[in-house]
Amino acid sequence: MFRNFKLVSRMVFGRGAFNQLDDILAAQRPPSGGGMIFLLDTVFAGSALESRIPRRSGDRIICVDVTDEPKTAEVDRLTAEAKAHGDTVGGISGVIGIGGGSTMDLAKAVSLMLANPGSAADYQGWDLIREPAVYHVGIPTLAGTGAEVSRTTVLTGPKKKLGINSDHTVFDQIVLDPELLAGVPADQRFYTGMDCYIHCIESLEGTYLNAFSKAYGEKALDLCRQVFLTPGPDSDDQLMMASYCGGMSIAYSQVGVCHAMSYGLSFVLGTHHGIGNCIAFNQLEAFYPEGVAEFKQMMRRHDIALPTGITRDISPDQMETMIDVALILEPLWENALGPNWRDQMSRERIAELYQRM
Amino acid sequence: MFRNFKLVSRMVFGRGAFNQLDDILAAQRPPSGGGMIFLLDTVFAGSALESRIPRRSGDRIICVDVTDEPKTAEVDRLTAEAKAHGDTVGGISGVIGIGGGSTMDLAKAVSLMLANPGSAADYQGWDLIREPAVYHVGIPTLAGTGAEVSRTTVLTGPKKKLGINSDHTVFDQIVLDPELLAGVPADQRFYTGMDCYIHCIESLEGTYLNAFSKAYGEKALDLCRQVFLTPGPDSDDQLMMASYCGGMSIAYSQVGVCHAMSYGLSFVLGTHHGIGNCIAFNQLEAFYPEGVAEFKQMMRRHDIALPTGITRDISPDQMETMIDVALILEPLWENALGPNWRDQMSRERIAELYQRM
Repeated sequence: MFRNFKLVSRMVFGRGAFNQLDDILAAQRPPSGGGMIFLLDTVFAGSALESRIPRRSGDRIICVDVTDEPKTAEVDRLTAEAKAHGDTVGGISGVIGIGGGSTMDLAKAVSLMLANPGSAADYQGWDLIREPAVYHVGIPTLAGTGAEVSRTTVLTGPKKKLGINSDHTVFDQIVLDPELLAGVPADQRFYTGMDCYIHCIESLEGTYLNAFSKAYGEKALDLCRQVFLTPGPDSDDQLMMASYCGGMSIAYSQVGVCHAMSYGLSFVLGTHHGIGNCIAFNQLEAFYPEGVAEFKQMMRRHDIALPTGITRDISPDQMETMIDVALILEPLWENALGPNWRDQMSRERIAELYQRM
Repeated sequence: MFRNFKLVSRMVFGRGAFNQLDDILAAQRPPSGGGMIFLLDTVFAGSALESRIPRRSGDRIICVDVTDEPKTAEVDRLTAEAKAHGDTVGGISGVIGIGGGSTMDLAKAVSLMLANPGSAADYQGWDLIREPAVYHVGIPTLAGTGAEVSRTTVLTGPKKKLGINSDHTVFDQIVLDPELLAGVPADQRFYTGMDCYIHCIESLEGTYLNAFSKAYGEKALDLCRQVFLTPGPDSDDQLMMASYCGGMSIAYSQVGVCHAMSYGLSFVLGTHHGIGNCIAFNQLEAFYPEGVAEFKQMMRRHDIALPTGITRDISPDQMETMIDVALILEPLWENALGPNWRDQMSRERIAELYQRM
């Protein structure tokens, strides 16, 4: 059985496409009223971008702090806030996320939880969502995660870091405006871009690939190389397309060793996904020799100094938890190393890799 | 304003994916009954493929003859036949096209006309369709046209060859099964594949390109080169992806001189789109020198002998009509040659090119 892949319903791509948002939303506003919730990364509070949000009567902008990666409790709190606002304006017609991967994930999760009872933590897993989400739009201001096209919203819950994976998670609309990438701090741009690069290396060198995912993965890799090794005036356009293609390539492929280990760092140390991938990938020459060599070349080109020694002070219990979180992601290990991956990946070997980070 | 591009809702890609069709359709069958209409290219009548169609009670297979390219009158006739069948089984729940680009276009058009009054000829143009189509599925057995992802269905009407261009035209579901390409006659495979190749050359060398269409166009071109210059065991998978990527690249680009001239051949002489493109492109060194050289290399590699002298016996009136049909496609000329294209393309120059074909 091949996955019957749910695609984003509509997309607009182009420099200045953000200016079309009012028109795009107009078609989704019911004549009877109801408001839109804009979830805006708090770094844009008071910015020119905030003032360009096409806010109409009944709409509300909620600034979200993504210093920490999204948590289920945060989703529940935002959903309650959106519902309370909806009670005063005749319902919520849509949720629009404006920010990086974490903001995309919050917008997806809140749109799902506005239509489904209980806590976001109840739906961490695969295909547990019953009711379609309210209309939701993704507008990335960072590129690389592929969150704009994926069917997941990655959340840290009380017990696990795991996505709400569902066809209903997929955005109804994405607005890809490369102008929104201007002004991203250089290190943040690099870490998020490397999410895409690493993800391409992992899927192209994995065992799960088919022609669909290979075509998208190769194109995303090609674009990442242009952006990070031979940058030019179109780099932001290319990076936005790399992220989109990288996300699409996941339809019939899987990430690998780096993402598995990065999830462990993230769960125990709160390391953000992009930088966590970089810290992990930097130690994975044994698995991805050419990819890691090229990654180091990109780091030099962009003067990136990764944090070191981040696992130095963790307790033995924390180390065990990190290893547990990494090992639970069986499809990632199988994609990377084949069905007999357990022969190669002992807990000791994983611990040794974590100790180097 | 950038186009807000409507994507196919769901897609499945993989060898043997056709076997999932019964499951896919099950979700679309209303409990109250109603049938599916399978439009099957008549070359498959009585074939193993026909016997694999998951026909349930109330469903009907209609074989369609695509010897000539689809006409609005044919769409009207098929729509009437589907409606009459629907009256006996409690409605039509979906239309599934199984065949090449012409069959895809018939399936799209019939699904639109089952939900909209009048004749298909009334809707040739842009965004004239009012009501959403009934659920419709595209299952290509030929690759290259991009019809599986496009928002048009190209029809020849009493007065013009022009698509029904609408967001409602886009398929709800596509099933991309590379196994279905096995057994296509070599020349047909070449002509249809070259539709994609030519379309990439025209869009990548055009003036309308952006990073989205460039990424898709480059990938489609890269895949076409692999398929037609260095073929291997995955060629059918690659050709199916090339067609998909080529179709996606049209979102923010446009075809050019070859497609404009091919439309003229098709309208006056009934030349099929794929072979018509090849006949036209073969004479367009002046516009696409590298692309035409590589195309000739592909022709040699595949022992393709194009028909010659097809315009030798046409009347002066027919020549004028061909030129009219080509010239009406202004965006194609502008994409190819820039805003001052009229300075380069006199009626005489077009006539001279047609005379060489």
